[in-house]
Amino acid sequence: MIAETPFPVSIALVHYPVLNKRGEVIGSAVTNLDVHDIARAARTYGVHRYYITTPYGDQRDFVGDIMSHWREGYGATYNPARKEALEIVRVVDGLQEAIDELTAAYGRRPLVVGTSAQAQDRIIAFADLGQMMAAGRPLLLIFGTAHGLAPEIMATTDAVLPPLKGRTAYNHLSVRSAVAIILDRLLGQ
Amino acid sequence: MIAETPFPVSIALVHYPVLNKRGEVIGSAVTNLDVHDIARAARTYGVHRYYITTPYGDQRDFVGDIMSHWREGYGATYNPARKEALEIVRVVDGLQEAIDELTAAYGRRPLVVGTSAQAQDRIIAFADLGQMMAAGRPLLLIFGTAHGLAPEIMATTDAVLPPLKGRTAYNHLSVRSAVAIILDRLLGQ
Repeated sequence: MIAETPFPVSIALVHYPVLNKRGEVIGSAVTNLDVHDIARAARTYGVHRYYITTPYGDQRDFVGDIMSHWREGYGATYNPARKEALEIVRVVDGLQEAIDELTAAYGRRPLVVGTSAQAQDRIIAFADLGQMMAAGRPLLLIFGTAHGLAPEIMATTDAVLPPLKGRTAYNHLSVRSAVAIILDRLLGQ
Repeated sequence: MIAETPFPVSIALVHYPVLNKRGEVIGSAVTNLDVHDIARAARTYGVHRYYITTPYGDQRDFVGDIMSHWREGYGATYNPARKEALEIVRVVDGLQEAIDELTAAYGRRPLVVGTSAQAQDRIIAFADLGQMMAAGRPLLLIFGTAHGLAPEIMATTDAVLPPLKGRTAYNHLSVRSAVAIILDRLLGQ
């Protein structure tokens, strides 16, 4: 079962296929801080599931070890708030597994919406996506590690959010910052 | 000189005096990721200065080493975008040094605005602060590491922003996420 919160929003952090700085398709390593920071932001904003996707078994084991420490080990006693954040985390081998789980939970396929620091085709405005959420449409937001989602995965999305803009031409936010800002824009009060 | 951007906003990340989980006043350690993630968000949103405050000389040396690597060493060639972000970072021994530098640069004292995950006195709404910024008031936003700014430093602020709220009672955002969200609310487009 997926908890009842106002909007059925989940997120996925993709580690393959993503781009490196030369635009080549790579698999990136899962980092401890991406697990924690994004889980805390997701939990704050009422996200149902935070999927961490990686096809590498050793990386999935690594995240499993982190989560066991904080959910069941010493960490659960030391920091109950961290336990609560990590309860929404799921480690999966790819996006399809996340989509299948959400489809089974909601009885319909979620809208899969990509994010990018670069302009993309099929842009959906934040306000329009907010209206679809308010109408009850389940949503899976996907974020890329390294230099962003590879074109082959971007092509499978239903729409893409516009790049975040500050007041400068510089746009090198960390994925941790981008997730926090996008959740606040869609779900903040 | 401080660069010309639409709003004269600076931020400070305070490592002393802050609170630990038991509410005791401590000094926290500077972390590499707080330097990088927050510099990237600050640069994206046109922040003038990102001050890292710590009274500990070894910690200031640590940040100096990180910055030398990325601003002048191998990192500057490997990742010019990181160099650009770190150019706005200053390491100071306390908030007063930051306030003095900004006062000298602008010819007037900046409005010093605190942030907290808990409700505080002297709250200023985001919209009201936005109006003061639009009217040209220089601003210094301060953020606490560990479990937040100690009361003795909160008492020296001119006002405090309201806690960030998602759609849940959970409010354990990382300071990295909180900085990104607050900059987007005040300076995002």
